[in-house]
Amino acid sequence: MSLRYLSARVAQQIDDELMSAAGAYSLDQLMELAGQACAVALARVYDKAKYPRVLVCCGPGNQGGDGLVAARHLGFFGYKTSVFMPKPGSKEIYQRLKTQCDNMQILTTSDLDSLKTALASSDVILDAIFGFSFKPPVRAPFDEVLPLLTRSRLPIVSVDIPSGWDVEGGRPSSPLPGTDGSGGKKVDALDPDVLISLTAPKEGVREYRGRHFLGGRFVPKSFGEKFGLNLPEYPTTDLVVELLAPSENTANKL
Amino acid sequence: MSLRYLSARVAQQIDDELMSAAGAYSLDQLMELAGQACAVALARVYDKAKYPRVLVCCGPGNQGGDGLVAARHLGFFGYKTSVFMPKPGSKEIYQRLKTQCDNMQILTTSDLDSLKTALASSDVILDAIFGFSFKPPVRAPFDEVLPLLTRSRLPIVSVDIPSGWDVEGGRPSSPLPGTDGSGGKKVDALDPDVLISLTAPKEGVREYRGRHFLGGRFVPKSFGEKFGLNLPEYPTTDLVVELLAPSENTANKL
Repeated sequence: MSLRYLSARVAQQIDDELMSAAGAYSLDQLMELAGQACAVALARVYDKAKYPRVLVCCGPGNQGGDGLVAARHLGFFGYKTSVFMPKPGSKEIYQRLKTQCDNMQILTTSDLDSLKTALASSDVILDAIFGFSFKPPVRAPFDEVLPLLTRSRLPIVSVDIPSGWDVEGGRPSSPLPGTDGSGGKKVDALDPDVLISLTAPKEGVREYRGRHFLGGRFVPKSFGEKFGLNLPEYPTTDLVVELLAPSENTANKL
Repeated sequence: MSLRYLSARVAQQIDDELMSAAGAYSLDQLMELAGQACAVALARVYDKAKYPRVLVCCGPGNQGGDGLVAARHLGFFGYKTSVFMPKPGSKEIYQRLKTQCDNMQILTTSDLDSLKTALASSDVILDAIFGFSFKPPVRAPFDEVLPLLTRSRLPIVSVDIPSGWDVEGGRPSSPLPGTDGSGGKKVDALDPDVLISLTAPKEGVREYRGRHFLGGRFVPKSFGEKFGLNLPEYPTTDLVVELLAPSENTANKL
């Protein structure tokens, strides 16, 4: 039984059910556990002794909220953390999560000049820009943000789906068209070194070959069975589990 | 600089500030992180291979909510978990947390006969009955519950303050008087093997000599400084840190 890769529709359906009367989770709870798992995955790969400075890039949706939670936990883990969030989400939870970051002396910036400055003094990027509800094309200001992140050559940890990738179709093979009237301006998709999938991986990352973690130790077994997720076991009390690339899985079976 | 032990009043003040506009945490967030830390502390000491069955005893206040969160995480960690909760709290969050346990096939019972049955088929108890707002005497039905827990001779992990202890005065040296008109019926205080203090330890556990963990990696440094908590460093991405008994601390300094 292999792990199920989710379409955007099924991913949304699982999230909705987890927060329905049946699942009974609040957004606060799920965002806390998701963001915490992202922070733990980053820390698993990028030791703070060698990579002390983390730049968390947050989008305007729920994934931006996961990013704010991750930034706070990374702060508690001892990383020097900053946040780039050009379009804060409108839900009140984002303001609360941002205040929690403020209380950790985590600086949040929103303009491209600040992003350039932050990139010059960071060791690793957490990409919490677009989640599974992203639909191309990449809109401003993110059409300028993604190329800046790529050009920084910093290692990137992406949450759920690398920003700029199609949730189901995967990495675009040619630049996505711009939408700002600049006439087909090049928009990059990110090529992360590490991916942390939440709940279950999305269809678009089937061919992803970097280090791949799964987080979301909050999906009850009955939900996992209902949606045929075939989730792996998480070890001990860990909040993330590393998934092996299909070739490694085969190797292990031989 | 030594760790500060909190009075009930200061513990309440810190909780209030964490959830004020300044702290910006929601009850859902803090309860999730607190309960998760309790589950991790228990798992650190009681390996599920040797202690697979955990009985979580929940009181009617916020600590009962921490217990429900811990029960769910213990379920995810692979423990066979059950909950005893004779007086569910009235806030709606308790109902949601209970539904989350139901979804994990965690059985919740509320009467003393069921407690006796559950004790006979458990390996370790998580005591989430009374927290730092507890004021003696122990009221029904807990005046009967605590002696049953003690008589089970199962190992006990207490949250914040062992149930039956005075939050500031510590373990009562003589039985607390009953309040049910039965004329001074004996009421036991628990003697836990493990204690998990949340945020910072309470004055009443200064003389506690079992294994002692601290959880609550959510108190911003500025809050810690304001309240003079002198919190220890948490290692790596751990959610709990073990506190050494004063004698061990001295030994380490020599």
